[in-house]
Amino acid sequence: MNTTQRPLILVSNDDSYTSKGVRVLIDTLLEYGDVVAICPEFPQSGKSMAITVNEALRITPLPDYHGAKMYKVDGTPVDCIKLAMHTVLPRPADLVCTGINHGSNSAINVLYSGTMGAAMEGCAFGIPSIGFSLTDHSEDADFTPCIPAIKLLVEQVLCHGLPEGICLNVNIPNINGIPKQMRLAVACRGKWNDEYQEYTDPHGRKFYWLTGKYVNEEPDNENTDEWCLDHGFISVVPVELERTSPINPELQWIKSMTEDYRNLL
Amino acid sequence: MNTTQRPLILVSNDDSYTSKGVRVLIDTLLEYGDVVAICPEFPQSGKSMAITVNEALRITPLPDYHGAKMYKVDGTPVDCIKLAMHTVLPRPADLVCTGINHGSNSAINVLYSGTMGAAMEGCAFGIPSIGFSLTDHSEDADFTPCIPAIKLLVEQVLCHGLPEGICLNVNIPNINGIPKQMRLAVACRGKWNDEYQEYTDPHGRKFYWLTGKYVNEEPDNENTDEWCLDHGFISVVPVELERTSPINPELQWIKSMTEDYRNLL
Repeated sequence: MNTTQRPLILVSNDDSYTSKGVRVLIDTLLEYGDVVAICPEFPQSGKSMAITVNEALRITPLPDYHGAKMYKVDGTPVDCIKLAMHTVLPRPADLVCTGINHGSNSAINVLYSGTMGAAMEGCAFGIPSIGFSLTDHSEDADFTPCIPAIKLLVEQVLCHGLPEGICLNVNIPNINGIPKQMRLAVACRGKWNDEYQEYTDPHGRKFYWLTGKYVNEEPDNENTDEWCLDHGFISVVPVELERTSPINPELQWIKSMTEDYRNLL
Repeated sequence: MNTTQRPLILVSNDDSYTSKGVRVLIDTLLEYGDVVAICPEFPQSGKSMAITVNEALRITPLPDYHGAKMYKVDGTPVDCIKLAMHTVLPRPADLVCTGINHGSNSAINVLYSGTMGAAMEGCAFGIPSIGFSLTDHSEDADFTPCIPAIKLLVEQVLCHGLPEGICLNVNIPNINGIPKQMRLAVACRGKWNDEYQEYTDPHGRKFYWLTGKYVNEEPDNENTDEWCLDHGFISVVPVELERTSPINPELQWIKSMTEDYRNLL
């Protein structure tokens, strides 16, 4: 970071530029730097790290919000980060913050979350990146309980940075009052069951809508983000961009097979 | 796997059910089991692990293809896998194969790939899963060079299984003839530069289209998938579903901060 300038903080989300969560995030961040918010024009929940490859994209300026520059993009959260870096930012951002998501992105949801997709894209650009989520889906959720945690994490990450290839997934429980405890956690193992509700349209054809119940496979593990949220703790999960598995003994047969491929043909 | 039945192989892709790549994959797999292919109705390149949460989905039967059951879904590759498991498959699949993608999914592209998103979703269901890609984007690409590798990997994975939470990202170089070498590789470090082409519409408004050049940051590393493909090798990268980073010394300050949160409020 250039110490003669205020930090440049890039903001995005997946609930679109109209959401309350991103406004609270911007208001909280303005104390720490110059804020540029580039958000999807339309809701993009569940978009993971999707990018728009077969269509054109537009980036459209919006009125400033409390001193922050704002833009909308007719694409995904990752499109927002990429287009921001390419077209709008006057210099590389010092920090990427995404959210505050209306709803949890804990456990396996980190795979599907557009909020975390945008944070991971910031991380891919080598910028310290944090995604924030509140466990309340409602449009007018009260984000006040998030503010102290955001302030602390932003202060500290601007000071310390984050290790290369690691971003943070911060989930804040929707409890009565401000959570008093925070834990460095792991994404809980678990899965969604009964994932679709079935309907029949007026013409007799079936259609399906994603739903389901999350089944926690390790409810007693105090190190998981789900345990934290169930017990009123804020969870902070370090998320790796790297996808390659280290070679473990269980993969040794694949290594042998690949080395022998010419003879197996 | 129930040894009294043929293996059940679930196929999907991101190039849609009309693509040549998925037809070649199905033809290759029919030798090894009962094949059910559930593919996106529309092209879904770059959809990562996106899921459809705000719209309904339909799954529509198509005519059988060479003895394989085929369906189309008006959603993403991950939607295809989820809906397959929920609505169509008579029993859990023994293997998920995705592709053959028209174009490479090596290096950082594993993050954005819909083909690999579907394979990762199969992995999330606990099913051994493999994504196949050929480094040729053309619609009428010659997929013949992929067939021996698919056969070997499918035979071996049906026999050995894969470790929990790990799927395979297999990229096959488009060379003159059948590649004779295969390597267990790591995703190459690198990034896309100059990611957007800028246009001006007839009304004077700018729009953007994703493009860019991949810059290999470790061109001499013989263990990367990019090195393999550049040298005519098939690359096999083990991809982890787990996103939580192990706690390393660089993250220790975050652990201390979270433990001290109550006092820092």
